Amino acid sequence: MSDSHFYAVIPAGGSGTRLWPMSRASHPKFLLDLGGGRSLLRATIDRLGPLAPQDRIYVVTGAAHVRAIAGQLPDVPGPNLLVEPGPRDSAPAIGLAAALIHRRDPDAVMGSFAADHLVRDRAAFEAAVRAAAGAAAAGYLVTVGLRPTGPETGYGYLRRGDPIDGPTGDPGARTAYHAEEFKEKPSAATAERYVADGDYLWNASMFVWRTDAFLAELQRQQPDLSAGLGRIVAAWDGPDRDRVLGEVWAGLPKINVDQGVMEDAARRGRVATVPASLGWDDVGDWDTIARVLPRDGDGVVTMRDGPVVCIDSRNTLVAGDSGRVVAVVGVDDLVVVDTDDALLVCRRDHAQQVKAVVDDLNRRGRTDLV
Amino acid sequence: MSDSHFYAVIPAGGSGTRLWPMSRASHPKFLLDLGGGRSLLRATIDRLGPLAPQDRIYVVTGAAHVRAIAGQLPDVPGPNLLVEPGPRDSAPAIGLAAALIHRRDPDAVMGSFAADHLVRDRAAFEAAVRAAAGAAAAGYLVTVGLRPTGPETGYGYLRRGDPIDGPTGDPGARTAYHAEEFKEKPSAATAERYVADGDYLWNASMFVWRTDAFLAELQRQQPDLSAGLGRIVAAWDGPDRDRVLGEVWAGLPKINVDQGVMEDAARRGRVATVPASLGWDDVGDWDTIARVLPRDGDGVVTMRDGPVVCIDSRNTLVAGDSGRVVAVVGVDDLVVVDTDDALLVCRRDHAQQVKAVVDDLNRRGRTDLV
Repeated sequence: MSDSHFYAVIPAGGSGTRLWPMSRASHPKFLLDLGGGRSLLRATIDRLGPLAPQDRIYVVTGAAHVRAIAGQLPDVPGPNLLVEPGPRDSAPAIGLAAALIHRRDPDAVMGSFAADHLVRDRAAFEAAVRAAAGAAAAGYLVTVGLRPTGPETGYGYLRRGDPIDGPTGDPGARTAYHAEEFKEKPSAATAERYVADGDYLWNASMFVWRTDAFLAELQRQQPDLSAGLGRIVAAWDGPDRDRVLGEVWAGLPKINVDQGVMEDAARRGRVATVPASLGWDDVGDWDTIARVLPRDGDGVVTMRDGPVVCIDSRNTLVAGDSGRVVAVVGVDDLVVVDTDDALLVCRRDHAQQVKAVVDDLNRRGRTDLV
Repeated sequence: MSDSHFYAVIPAGGSGTRLWPMSRASHPKFLLDLGGGRSLLRATIDRLGPLAPQDRIYVVTGAAHVRAIAGQLPDVPGPNLLVEPGPRDSAPAIGLAAALIHRRDPDAVMGSFAADHLVRDRAAFEAAVRAAAGAAAAGYLVTVGLRPTGPETGYGYLRRGDPIDGPTGDPGARTAYHAEEFKEKPSAATAERYVADGDYLWNASMFVWRTDAFLAELQRQQPDLSAGLGRIVAAWDGPDRDRVLGEVWAGLPKINVDQGVMEDAARRGRVATVPASLGWDDVGDWDTIARVLPRDGDGVVTMRDGPVVCIDSRNTLVAGDSGRVVAVVGVDDLVVVDTDDALLVCRRDHAQQVKAVVDDLNRRGRTDLV
């Protein structure tokens, strides 16, 4: 891998409704600070520091978030902030970034990394991406496959096959394997079997590929999307960019990269995976956050500035930025999230149902709160 | 009982720390609105309406609360709001009111009623007070004894003895009994025995007596207190009232009426009790409030104006006046009290420990929050 051709793309979409009330449509999950004084997005950029300077980092997001993102990433050039006219899932977003990067550098290798995931082992992350870039140089679409730490039913899996030999027997390349099959979220029993088997990895949509290889695969599998992106890129530097982008974007297919590109490419032997243990978490709900953050001797996790009074309570997360005093008395396995205009009190084992609160508020027309 | 000689005294003291954060030193329990749009104090006054017009109602309170009380009770004459220079328990407060009422009307019968209790059966209350006034006219110090609804260990009890015959065999008077003995808060086993026995009643410090009978008993048992009150009353209408009140009050014994007057009077056969079932509750903690207020089909009690979103939750109280949206998800047997500057989340069976939160905040010097 030649570092000077490596680019990173960060799709920054989705509001993270299961992290309401800290995550909102106007303040999505990637802007959350889970500790350390920086947002998940900022931490993602920092993690990429050894791999790509900020002028080779692209962020794809909605118009509502451009200002906040620009404020958090002052060293990412303005033209690298790509604004989607509307959300159309990951294939159009990543495809647009790939096409623009390819126009800038026909030898580009790009990695795509979620804006709102947690990666605790930065050295392992860097090594995995470098190994993935090695396999990508050989033409594969590469996904970093996460070694499962438990039989999770909330993630997709992929099955690794035989190792890939580098062109010159390079042993570094042997950290990459053929990715034989992508699997949707499994049942609990199936997940147990996957973990016991040892050849299954979590698919965290962490992709690395040569832009030419990806764009060729996109053209083969998603010709309409490919053609639409071509029209947009052709108009990109002219006076009609916004008009063409708006017109074309609305007609693009709404599909993600996993289903729209990777699954069929895997069937044709075009996908490689680099297994890795990154201390990764998608921190998608409050129970997960309570699990991954530092806790005190009673298992209490505090994620706020204001005073917290804790009497006879255990395994509880107190979060939120209201600054008010929060007192918990005699509670176990609870999440309390206290913001200026909304309060959530949720049992940790019901954390998935927080989405139902957002649905309920939407039904009541309280879009100001979601 | 001649209604025109009946006076009511409301000692309005105590902050109700177990009802933090709605109850504060600056906003005591008697100012809380438990529903119906009026405070416990206002409800107490309204309940006394059939018994005493507002110019025969006296409230004894601290200087900090006079303004709030005057705002809530516009028809109680200003001179009837008696301001304690400092809290010295109930005997000085009730004694001062008794002495001032006695000076106004030597034939007065007065009743003393807590400012912050709940009485759901107003007709039964009125009947019990009239019966008590009947026994008081015969010279007894009378306490309304509440028929226990369960083996509570948090209340004092009293044991009733033989019925009291009215002077002319008046059958109304036979609703009164000798009160043989006052008992401190019992153990659980003792409380069970009391309830099974049938002769034990809760002592809610709901007293009715002729002022002359009470003042005579006070003079006998608490001569220093009696003398001090005499000095204060003598100066009451002169220019030195505030100075004398301040000087004398600080030296008065700090004692309550139950222990300082009633216990020994009972031993000497001077106390009567009127057993009653009033739907009474002292609503001293959040668990009690959750129990006594109307609930929905899942046992959820809502005591706030703002929106409440309730997902898969049961037997839970959501209270507080912050106006923010409160969402509870998957919780049982919880209390959530959400105010502008403080939030409490407490398991109902730990409601007594809310006091520990106030203690903790005091230790931290956060007197602004208690």
